[in-house]
Amino acid sequence: MLSFDLASLHAGIVDPEMDSMRILSETALRFPDALSFSSGAPYDGNHDLSALTFYIDRYIKHLRERGVPEARITRLLFQYGPVNGLIQDEVALMLKRDEDIDVPAEAIMITHGFQEAALVALRGLFTSPDDVLLAVSPAYVGIRGAARMLDIPVRGVAEGPEGLDPQTVAETARAVRAEGKRVAALYLVPDFNNPSGTVLPRAARQRLLDVAAEEDFVVLEDNPYGLFARDGESQPTLKSLDTRRRVVYLGSFAKSAFPGARLGYLVADQEVTEPSGTVRTLAQTLSKAKAMFTVGSSTLSQAVIGGYLVEHDHDLRSATRELAAVYLERLDTVLAALDEHFPAGGDHGVAWNTPRGGFFLTLTVPFTADLAAMERSARDYGVSWAPMTMFHLDGGGEREIRLGFSNLAPDAIREGIARLARFVTDASKDGATTTPKHPAPEIPEGQA
Amino acid sequence: MLSFDLASLHAGIVDPEMDSMRILSETALRFPDALSFSSGAPYDGNHDLSALTFYIDRYIKHLRERGVPEARITRLLFQYGPVNGLIQDEVALMLKRDEDIDVPAEAIMITHGFQEAALVALRGLFTSPDDVLLAVSPAYVGIRGAARMLDIPVRGVAEGPEGLDPQTVAETARAVRAEGKRVAALYLVPDFNNPSGTVLPRAARQRLLDVAAEEDFVVLEDNPYGLFARDGESQPTLKSLDTRRRVVYLGSFAKSAFPGARLGYLVADQEVTEPSGTVRTLAQTLSKAKAMFTVGSSTLSQAVIGGYLVEHDHDLRSATRELAAVYLERLDTVLAALDEHFPAGGDHGVAWNTPRGGFFLTLTVPFTADLAAMERSARDYGVSWAPMTMFHLDGGGEREIRLGFSNLAPDAIREGIARLARFVTDASKDGATTTPKHPAPEIPEGQA
Repeated sequence: MLSFDLASLHAGIVDPEMDSMRILSETALRFPDALSFSSGAPYDGNHDLSALTFYIDRYIKHLRERGVPEARITRLLFQYGPVNGLIQDEVALMLKRDEDIDVPAEAIMITHGFQEAALVALRGLFTSPDDVLLAVSPAYVGIRGAARMLDIPVRGVAEGPEGLDPQTVAETARAVRAEGKRVAALYLVPDFNNPSGTVLPRAARQRLLDVAAEEDFVVLEDNPYGLFARDGESQPTLKSLDTRRRVVYLGSFAKSAFPGARLGYLVADQEVTEPSGTVRTLAQTLSKAKAMFTVGSSTLSQAVIGGYLVEHDHDLRSATRELAAVYLERLDTVLAALDEHFPAGGDHGVAWNTPRGGFFLTLTVPFTADLAAMERSARDYGVSWAPMTMFHLDGGGEREIRLGFSNLAPDAIREGIARLARFVTDASKDGATTTPKHPAPEIPEGQA
Repeated sequence: MLSFDLASLHAGIVDPEMDSMRILSETALRFPDALSFSSGAPYDGNHDLSALTFYIDRYIKHLRERGVPEARITRLLFQYGPVNGLIQDEVALMLKRDEDIDVPAEAIMITHGFQEAALVALRGLFTSPDDVLLAVSPAYVGIRGAARMLDIPVRGVAEGPEGLDPQTVAETARAVRAEGKRVAALYLVPDFNNPSGTVLPRAARQRLLDVAAEEDFVVLEDNPYGLFARDGESQPTLKSLDTRRRVVYLGSFAKSAFPGARLGYLVADQEVTEPSGTVRTLAQTLSKAKAMFTVGSSTLSQAVIGGYLVEHDHDLRSATRELAAVYLERLDTVLAALDEHFPAGGDHGVAWNTPRGGFFLTLTVPFTADLAAMERSARDYGVSWAPMTMFHLDGGGEREIRLGFSNLAPDAIREGIARLARFVTDASKDGATTTPKHPAPEIPEGQA
């Protein structure tokens, strides 16, 4: 009977760091009554099952209005279709309207979420084991995971309170080159980085684009949270400032629509010249990689998202204003609850950052906040969170906690922070080894 | 302005062989009046747009009938969900019923089509540059492409009229080992191989499983066409004979339901032991790769296919009987038309195989059947096809044509073979360099 030791499988699967996401979700399953600050799942209280078929029908209606013959519509939805997708026109209109990104549909590829967009971009741009990916650190685990799957080495560039310092990026690129290697790309989330919540200031955006041109690398801009800035506080995306075509923009509908569709996109308007002299966009050229990952993207997902874009006049910034207010209220609730439980000037040794938006906040605590501590917190105090070490690319974050508040109602946030305060207080006293003095109270159903 | 030469991108994207699929579809676009034998797209004349929302609603009804609370159903469809999928129970019932494959739901992963299933399996099983994939040759281009994306070396094993010879496989595995390398897996389509149409006889199936155990490799069994055998002629899948768990089974709903859903699955019931002693199925362990490719699979696609499975009592063999009859009639029509235009005993120098099912047939011609010849055929004779060289892994097939008949109605097949006969006759006379004596006739709309 064939069986395996885990160690005999690919390094990216063996790597215990790649297990952290699973451990988080398993902990959530094992302690269903724990209030969970551990995930970055978007708010899902606003969904209605009938919306799924409504938006599919809306997209079909849109095709009919554009004069697409009925047989062609049926074929578009049922048959194999163009690898780069069906709804690039709709996404191009949205990008122009929401982000002032002006690219033709040919520069867009529809993908199965951000994750596939990142994978396709990495696959195309990285050609040798000496090609290095720079990534903001701490970073979303998905970028490290995508790189691992393709055996691409990743080097973290530590960010500060205002995100990546372009100068540090330039120095890191030069250090990589001094080793005889090449920086093929830099990954970052300029708006409300996951997990740190940082926002790159306008001047640094411009300077980072200069560094990309000077040091000759591609910028992979990931922007899941940009729509949810406070009114008047939005920064221009790097792609909208990208006069030198240094940026490949990676988008997702997981937060602006819903995650289940698994739909995202890649914007790559760089020209690629083939030996025959034919010139295509990088997005068109990368269709050869996309075809070998998942062929085209689900037509059902594309129809739902296409219908959503059409229904909202391709203006997701307006369509998500209520949602943005939900997230901002939750952020404010977390901050207020932390202020209450860890008052300024106290000797609690607890600190946190105050992001202006996004889904996450970082708490610094006076003890080691590892997965074992998280499990105790979930089991004995009824509150879970994510260790920040999961997100650091080159070590660090041992005494830091990521609090994701996007899918917790304000009442649950207040109760959750109260529980967290009890855990943190006990853990600070005794190195997080004791059991709690008070058992966790009963939790109302469905609140987690 | 950043731009690229194609040669500066990843080898799998530069490789002109990876371009052949695109050239085929571009030729179809450039010559829309040509009757196309070049694709393997399934028959799509039986689809109805209302089916999409019908099956989604059917799946939702099924969840309600099983007592899943409304809020949970909404969350399943909209939110991030289990990476390995929602409908493994339905697929397990289908596998038991259709293929006598008896595996628990935990051994199943739902993927974005066969392509992602292959990619996930390859990623997990291949750990070093010295790990070699054996593949039947000629083979579906998707397997070579998936391997290229992961820099996995592929070695072709030439098949005969009855598919792969287990003895040749064993000898190839030993030759690989003698080079200091390892065969990590063997890929094949035992039932109606694409492009050759071969079916592996029962005894060879058993023997191949013995060889896999003796030479210690995994068998990747791809089975897109098995449902469409003639009544009484179905062979047992390798997986149903797999008492030693040597087989990872790769499935797709592209042919049994429809391609647009981009839904497939992987069956991997092998046990994996983790350092902690925890034992999971290989399918569960590989979820770490799946998470880094596309996270979970589209919930809309899963709902449609889930509803389709439930509606048909998980019995796709019965549900596809009419469809199987459509394909078999088309196969018979191609064979009869070839007999008519290239009569036995003639000096035309043309031969072909007579598969018992599947989507494809191979024509041997007395001239070089390359992409240039195909373009002439499409442009000047109004009929397109695929050069067999595209599918050979180690050369060969220079004078062979793949005829895909799955999405051509019998009348179009008869007209297409008549055109093909004119092209073949002219090309045989003058090495395929002349223009035709007779311009291609007008083609009824929508027939291609």
